[in-house]
Amino acid sequence: SRSINLAVIPGDGIGQEVVTEGLKVLSAVLPQDMKLETKEYDFGARRYHATGETLTDADLDALKQHDAILLGAIGDPSVPSGVLERGFLLKLRFAFDHHVNLRPSRLLPGVETPLKGQPEIDFVVVREGTEGPYTGNGGTIRKGTEYEVATEVSVNTAYGVERVVRDAFARAQARPRKKLTLVHKNNVLTFAGHLWTNVFNAVAAEYPEVTTEYIHVDAATIYLVTQPERFDVIVTDNLFGDIITDLAAAVSGGIGVAASGNINPSGAFPSMFEPVHGSAPDIAGQGKADPTATVLSVALLLRHLGLDAEATRIEDAVAADLAERVGRPARSTAEIGDALAVRVTG
Amino acid sequence: SRSINLAVIPGDGIGQEVVTEGLKVLSAVLPQDMKLETKEYDFGARRYHATGETLTDADLDALKQHDAILLGAIGDPSVPSGVLERGFLLKLRFAFDHHVNLRPSRLLPGVETPLKGQPEIDFVVVREGTEGPYTGNGGTIRKGTEYEVATEVSVNTAYGVERVVRDAFARAQARPRKKLTLVHKNNVLTFAGHLWTNVFNAVAAEYPEVTTEYIHVDAATIYLVTQPERFDVIVTDNLFGDIITDLAAAVSGGIGVAASGNINPSGAFPSMFEPVHGSAPDIAGQGKADPTATVLSVALLLRHLGLDAEATRIEDAVAADLAERVGRPARSTAEIGDALAVRVTG
Ligand SMILES: CC(C)[C@H](C(=O)O)[C@@H](O)C(=O)O
Ligand SMILES: CC(C)[C@H](C(=O)O)[C@@H](O)C(=O)O
Repeated sequence: SRSINLAVIPGDGIGQEVVTEGLKVLSAVLPQDMKLETKEYDFGARRYHATGETLTDADLDALKQHDAILLGAIGDPSVPSGVLERGFLLKLRFAFDHHVNLRPSRLLPGVETPLKGQPEIDFVVVREGTEGPYTGNGGTIRKGTEYEVATEVSVNTAYGVERVVRDAFARAQARPRKKLTLVHKNNVLTFAGHLWTNVFNAVAAEYPEVTTEYIHVDAATIYLVTQPERFDVIVTDNLFGDIITDLAAAVSGGIGVAASGNINPSGAFPSMFEPVHGSAPDIAGQGKADPTATVLSVALLLRHLGLDAEATRIEDAVAADLAERVGRPARSTAEIGDALAVRVTG
Repeated sequence: SRSINLAVIPGDGIGQEVVTEGLKVLSAVLPQDMKLETKEYDFGARRYHATGETLTDADLDALKQHDAILLGAIGDPSVPSGVLERGFLLKLRFAFDHHVNLRPSRLLPGVETPLKGQPEIDFVVVREGTEGPYTGNGGTIRKGTEYEVATEVSVNTAYGVERVVRDAFARAQARPRKKLTLVHKNNVLTFAGHLWTNVFNAVAAEYPEVTTEYIHVDAATIYLVTQPERFDVIVTDNLFGDIITDLAAAVSGGIGVAASGNINPSGAFPSMFEPVHGSAPDIAGQGKADPTATVLSVALLLRHLGLDAEATRIEDAVAADLAERVGRPARSTAEIGDALAVRVTG
């Protein structure tokens, strides 16, 4: 009999609430013969304050045993900026070599967008997850003086760029429109830009059916609000991907519905799935958080594990739920989770 | 008698057309006793192809003699990406220490925005212009092999950050709402992020009347499309400023009306004013380009030279012209310039 051995990291703020609903829908959608084992891990602000730890080697060893990881949210104003981000979120992405950071954007019927004219939005961003300006390379000299110099080094390797570009081409090839856009800033960041552009063009030769284009990151933000329908698959660097996926989430229904996967396609380490939104401490514990982004992250998790039919059932349930929200009173976190759990079994 | 000694760089594509209209409006708005001397310089794709030169030391010496520089656009698909950007545009910003890159965003009545509900948009971005990831620091090893490594180094100094942060605080203090937002990514780029944040907080103590806030660059793109009215003055790093000002232009009427100044507030070198848009080779020479962004850049130029009343006359003329465009047939580049020239004298 088959089974999923899942690590669950509720984390901070609304993390616990949304993860509860994510697991509810996951349990509901799984076939009878599929066993779901979950183990909860305590990471985030509480543990940091209690022990000073964010993510230890022992933690990584334990997490490594799982098939996948579901994360709610990490981050709290009581912890200095950067401590949990670098010490937990990025440490995990780097330790488990999550080089494909997958962030789909779909504007579903019934969902509000800040853009006029309800444009057709259906694209996926493949953000590189282990290189670029996120490596933590750099440093500070003469800190706190008028002569301070602080550097940040963006590190880009042919190895790292090629594997994520290949992943993106494969995804583009599998979609009906077969279009891939490289987003970078190769006219200014010429060292990294040339590497990205050359690798992109080399791999493109192997995918004659995929239409390709190159867009500077600044221009990409314009297109995301003026003609988002032009995008199908986007591949980009870690920092540019961070920026444009928040904008993409904003135009396609907000971070309440934006899901993401931190994927290691080789399977050497478990992949991690999480909503794009943060811990939202202002509404934590009130049952106000929308668990939809977490539920959609569960769908990405299932697809990653090869359970495509179940992933599609969740996505269809979410689409139907969103379409029926128009004009209805707001529901609680649990009510939305319950409704989705019913739909995926129905 | 007073005079302005202006360097004019039409550049590539639509550059010549829009600069002609910018100069038309400038001549019209200047007081009788103000002499305008202009000298045209040949930079861009044509000269690069003819001579291999982008911007020589002799060019810089010549440009240095002027009170200010008006630029149309630089860039052409016939030149490899990066050559004119790094070899001309960025070289000039660095050589003349244009550390305040000023980019106002106002959604004027009658102007189309891709956002619903015609939000109130009136803010200005103070983008650092001489540091960050734009310094050209970095390099490539093992180029073209599967072991290539390419780096880009963001260089940030207390000196460079403090002067632009001070400029932004002074601008915020002078505006009715007196609000300043720092945009960075200090939870990931912790070295540069701490420098920016610490300098920002230190200078804030000298401006008790200015309300301050900090927003991560990814979240800033969300706010720019969901609540752009929250911004008054934004100060940010060179790359983040590049990205968010294109988005800001898109939501506040498009790059057809987005002006910018590359300013050296010390006056040690002439400042340069240019539309945010590029050379648009697809519509060059057809009289289709909207010269409004260039005309608004002339207003920034005049304000920089202390001619506030004339700057305001141009801005008012543009506002009136835009308000009357609704539902009217499109006009040519020259017709728009003529109309604005008439208005500023009226
Ligand atoms: C919290 C932060 C480290 C993270 C990032 O920058 O990657 C977040 O913004 C995201 O997009 O997942
Ligand atoms: C052309 C390019 C070098 C430039 C920049 O990145 O600064 C442009 O995008 C701008 O914003 O002025």
